[in-house]
Amino acid sequence: MTSTQERAEDLDLPYDVFAKACPSRGTLEHVTGRWGGLTLGALHEGSLRFNELRRRIDGVSEKMLSQTLHALERDGLVHRDARPTNPPRVDYELTPLGREVAERLLALIHCVEGRMDDVLAARERYDGTRGTF
Amino acid sequence: MTSTQERAEDLDLPYDVFAKACPSRGTLEHVTGRWGGLTLGALHEGSLRFNELRRRIDGVSEKMLSQTLHALERDGLVHRDARPTNPPRVDYELTPLGREVAERLLALIHCVEGRMDDVLAARERYDGTRGTF
Repeated sequence: MTSTQERAEDLDLPYDVFAKACPSRGTLEHVTGRWGGLTLGALHEGSLRFNELRRRIDGVSEKMLSQTLHALERDGLVHRDARPTNPPRVDYELTPLGREVAERLLALIHCVEGRMDDVLAARERYDGTRGTF
Repeated sequence: MTSTQERAEDLDLPYDVFAKACPSRGTLEHVTGRWGGLTLGALHEGSLRFNELRRRIDGVSEKMLSQTLHALERDGLVHRDARPTNPPRVDYELTPLGREVAERLLALIHCVEGRMDDVLAARERYDGTRGTF
């Protein structure tokens, strides 16, 4: 038995992101992709309309935000609430499942933001070392 | 004051992944990118050599794994331990900072893996609804 097999059995889960063909890898990519993570993070603060989301996520294009929202809606993480008003009003909000995922993601985001001084210091050391070769 | 400004101030952090120019966004991408996340996850189990990592992360190419490791090493998350043996032996391991980040990331990965039945059920519902249009 390889150590990889042992590890998969330790986790005792039918899904394994380390396996190329496992669908959990695709969902992890939707959740942690360049825009997916920021979208979940923004919606954790409350429901938002499309253009509010665009403003909150600095740099996202209309097309990318639209694709991101579709993928998250299809995975059951985001709910699209379209109201038949005039003009029509569409709000996006997290589902209970999306909230669970977003909470883990925000813990990660806050950890990274909180340790950026160390990251930038490490980059300086790394670039300095490389410069001497 | 816009609600976005209020939110940024609530967090009281000098770094903000929602801002396009903030360096924390790049680090979040290294950590959550397609291969960065799996690399941190794999190294959380213990130090590994390059080829061990390649086998553990099903589907990664030599080039992509090499680029991923360089970015994580530069950010101070991974330590590259080269020993002058014959043949030379190179091990990769998490730094204490990398371990902190990897723990948050694994909580997210395990959350996604653990809820994949719900995700796949949501996808079936979504595709079924779309099919009727």
